Amino acid sequence: MESAGQVIKCKAAVTWGKNAPFSIEEIEVAPPKAHEVRIKMIATGICRSDHHSIEGKFSSVKFPVIVGHEGVGIVESIGEGVKDIKPGDKVIPLVTPQCGQCQCCKDPRANRCLTIKLERQYGLMADGTSRFTCRGKQIYHFLNTSTFTEYTVVEEIAVAKIDDTATMDSVCLIGCAFSTGYGSVINTAKVHPGSTCVIFGLGGIGLAVIMGCKIAGAGRIIGVDVNPDKFDKAKELGATECINPKDYDKPVAQVIVEQTGGGVDYAFECVGHAETMLAALHSSHFAYGTTVIIGVSASTLSCDPMILLSGRTLKSSMLGAFGQS
Amino acid sequence: MESAGQVIKCKAAVTWGKNAPFSIEEIEVAPPKAHEVRIKMIATGICRSDHHSIEGKFSSVKFPVIVGHEGVGIVESIGEGVKDIKPGDKVIPLVTPQCGQCQCCKDPRANRCLTIKLERQYGLMADGTSRFTCRGKQIYHFLNTSTFTEYTVVEEIAVAKIDDTATMDSVCLIGCAFSTGYGSVINTAKVHPGSTCVIFGLGGIGLAVIMGCKIAGAGRIIGVDVNPDKFDKAKELGATECINPKDYDKPVAQVIVEQTGGGVDYAFECVGHAETMLAALHSSHFAYGTTVIIGVSASTLSCDPMILLSGRTLKSSMLGAFGQS
Repeated sequence: MESAGQVIKCKAAVTWGKNAPFSIEEIEVAPPKAHEVRIKMIATGICRSDHHSIEGKFSSVKFPVIVGHEGVGIVESIGEGVKDIKPGDKVIPLVTPQCGQCQCCKDPRANRCLTIKLERQYGLMADGTSRFTCRGKQIYHFLNTSTFTEYTVVEEIAVAKIDDTATMDSVCLIGCAFSTGYGSVINTAKVHPGSTCVIFGLGGIGLAVIMGCKIAGAGRIIGVDVNPDKFDKAKELGATECINPKDYDKPVAQVIVEQTGGGVDYAFECVGHAETMLAALHSSHFAYGTTVIIGVSASTLSCDPMILLSGRTLKSSMLGAFGQS
Repeated sequence: MESAGQVIKCKAAVTWGKNAPFSIEEIEVAPPKAHEVRIKMIATGICRSDHHSIEGKFSSVKFPVIVGHEGVGIVESIGEGVKDIKPGDKVIPLVTPQCGQCQCCKDPRANRCLTIKLERQYGLMADGTSRFTCRGKQIYHFLNTSTFTEYTVVEEIAVAKIDDTATMDSVCLIGCAFSTGYGSVINTAKVHPGSTCVIFGLGGIGLAVIMGCKIAGAGRIIGVDVNPDKFDKAKELGATECINPKDYDKPVAQVIVEQTGGGVDYAFECVGHAETMLAALHSSHFAYGTTVIIGVSASTLSCDPMILLSGRTLKSSMLGAFGQS
């Protein structure tokens, strides 16, 4: 049943508690309040961060919750005061919204809107309540999005209208994987033509990084994964070579340093493990290499600061730093 | 006795072993070999890295050794093939030489000459021998310099000729403290006018950072030290305010974030402790702050990678990244 201004009953994948399996439930989705929009979800990707969250690795994620943050849908109804979005619009919900008014939105270096700051708003809408209920219980939102449901409600400033002709089952990847990987190359590392890049982890993010490196004109694009089944796709998208650390009896960073005459210009960590973050750092050139960590990790990164003192840079960004300049 | 081409006997502060006190000894300084120069030292500073080295914190430092790396002197004699330096020249020995020919010297991003790579050449000249002996034993060189001696021998490419009118007892600071601090602001962080900066540790490096921030046009320059006796000098050189972490019952990073409306643009760590590195990171703005670690540390930096994921950058450089562009 779809009806603007009324509660919608629909199906959703609810996670009732830490490590609980997805439970396909009938939920109630309240109508959008002022400056909110309700979206009929059409497609969603699954991200490792959804998995981390279900595992309870982030204390900010509250249960029961509807996770998923890489989706696309069609606006079903809008709340009072919504001006730029109308029912029928194809939209991507945004983990990193832009109010356009706060200090961060006005600063070209930042893409972390303070109005809906990720850490502060985890789980609830701006008014401190949820739009989801199931079996009489409030269900928490997730990352300003919650896409594992037939209908979701998000802030007006947390949607991006997209072209009507976009292919829904692939454009959803712009909600996280593609933007995060591609933007990390273009906006965060600022890869330069002819440079040498290494990508640890050839999942959705890693493949998007490869596409970014290719567009940026990198001369060598080295994919690294312990699963060689991923190499064909990586090469199809732009990797010039691939390395399986299991094929060597020495650390993969050493292999990369040897094969690149001293280390790469840019290393990208797309796994979310402290171990691969360190490998990425050590793969980068000791005197000027830049390492971008992209994978969300609940582990602790421990390193000898001297790794950086020789001239390295370690940086990161949220969702590919789009919104920054 | 001074005589070009002959062994010179002179006094030096020799460190015979880990944690041994300086021993003022008569040593023999061999004449410079090809592409080397022998320098009569006039003045030298003492750096915390000398202290770390004496404590045995760096496995690359071999004993017995003559430490000191922040000096100035007058060339006494030159070896065969030395063209750009002559006896009588005032020179600063360089921890980071420039051969001008290697991959790093040719790359504008790097200032780490591969011909005399710090880690490789620790303790010996290019031919694998030392120019120092004492009581019949070979004494190791230190950081391509060894300034705690009346005479030292360094590579031709490891000296910078300076103006004849330079004041020797202050210009020696260009050998390390001033260049490292000032360059970290200008070359590494690239501080922009009107920005807010915080400096952890108000020793020689920290004061040079303050001078750099002032020259770069920073709007707020916040000095942090647990010793308030250092605040007057810091303010004299450009600090707009100073904070003693002992005056607060909450973490100093939190104090700085509160006092700067969300964190600083640039944080500089000039202590060399993992704890202050973390405080610097946390003091920087979560969405775009840059932290430069300058202090040489033998401790391990452990952090939650999520600190960076929000948009922070962590970087460092050697000797202020001079030689880079």
